[in-house]
Amino acid sequence: MFDVIAFDADDTLWPNEHLYIMKREQFIEMLRPYADPDHIGQTLDQTEIANLRYYGYGIKSFALSMVETAVHLTNGRVSGDTIQAILQFSKEMRDHPVQVFAGVTAVLDELAPKHRLMIITKGDLFEQESKIARSGIADRFQYIEVVSEKEAETYDALLHKYGIAPSRFLMVGNSVRSDILPVVEIGGTAVHIPHTSTWAHEHVPHADRSGYTELAHISQLPGWLAARARGG
Amino acid sequence: MFDVIAFDADDTLWPNEHLYIMKREQFIEMLRPYADPDHIGQTLDQTEIANLRYYGYGIKSFALSMVETAVHLTNGRVSGDTIQAILQFSKEMRDHPVQVFAGVTAVLDELAPKHRLMIITKGDLFEQESKIARSGIADRFQYIEVVSEKEAETYDALLHKYGIAPSRFLMVGNSVRSDILPVVEIGGTAVHIPHTSTWAHEHVPHADRSGYTELAHISQLPGWLAARARGG
Repeated sequence: MFDVIAFDADDTLWPNEHLYIMKREQFIEMLRPYADPDHIGQTLDQTEIANLRYYGYGIKSFALSMVETAVHLTNGRVSGDTIQAILQFSKEMRDHPVQVFAGVTAVLDELAPKHRLMIITKGDLFEQESKIARSGIADRFQYIEVVSEKEAETYDALLHKYGIAPSRFLMVGNSVRSDILPVVEIGGTAVHIPHTSTWAHEHVPHADRSGYTELAHISQLPGWLAARARGG
Repeated sequence: MFDVIAFDADDTLWPNEHLYIMKREQFIEMLRPYADPDHIGQTLDQTEIANLRYYGYGIKSFALSMVETAVHLTNGRVSGDTIQAILQFSKEMRDHPVQVFAGVTAVLDELAPKHRLMIITKGDLFEQESKIARSGIADRFQYIEVVSEKEAETYDALLHKYGIAPSRFLMVGNSVRSDILPVVEIGGTAVHIPHTSTWAHEHVPHADRSGYTELAHISQLPGWLAARARGG
């Protein structure tokens, strides 16, 4: 039924956000002498959002926002050690091993003979390519696209570029906002596989949910496709 | 003769490197109380090269390397004001207007009826897309590709993806290393338009030069193509 099945990568094929949460906690701990922990966290979140227009998404953007927040919250009295630690965070995040979720490889191997598989991932090109290369599953995908935003126009342009009819396109991902709603909007099919933690920016009101399928785990995908093929 | 003419963007369609040079000078000036200017510049260059594997190319990478160099050269005594100034550099660079070189728009308008035009640019996805969007010439290009490296395999994969024969592909750019040699290697044609300043990392030994054409200015491109079509 679907010529192309596209997957989001971060928190769909492998965990990613936990790294940001972990480093955010370490950052808060480090700045505790200067401010209330909640205030540190909120200031960092606000700085990240404000900096999206300058830096986009990714580890480097996160690191620069941490540096900016540290300077701000310490009234410029931030120590060189603290700055150095933030830079070290960014390098540790970059080098963190990419381990795919249980079941992912088996699912891809099951789907590959009948569908062209694709990755559509949002974020920093350099970081995303590095993670895909280190994931061990890159060779399962015919097409890999790193995009800076995942809006209806983004999917429209990609489907146009590859000559894929929306009715023959399935997108699988953990973000309703980025992976599901824009695909439904252009007439594609979308499967939402929720991840336990999703960044505040990615949340959409529950009321917006319609026209897509939710599965608890990626390993249910082949069964869902088979049932759909049988008209189930 | 050529189905597709692809252009590098930075320092081919619009100036870019001068921004890095300008901010590098300002950075050196700012750290002068702590070290010899030459040493500051060399340390920054070395830090950038060492960080390529962590950060890739672009403004954010440059900013993080400046922060790292400032902490290092001041033995951790860097002031919050200096860090703040570096962050400000990165935002100024991001917001710098993108003004295409004289002649570029006319050349594109002359070539567009007979060729599909493409941008192939290396660097940070977010930054490159932003520059292309702000350049005022994005609508001249059928295809836009931002890549993390420009090696023979990169061009090979792109031509494969778009179904372009190497013999029908022309690449135009300012970097012999990135825009010319890998294209010649895969059997494509390349036109080198030197830019006055090219980053040290991009230089290749002069002896490697062969099999491509050098033009002094992009406005010579239509004439060169016409002469070639006439067998000249």
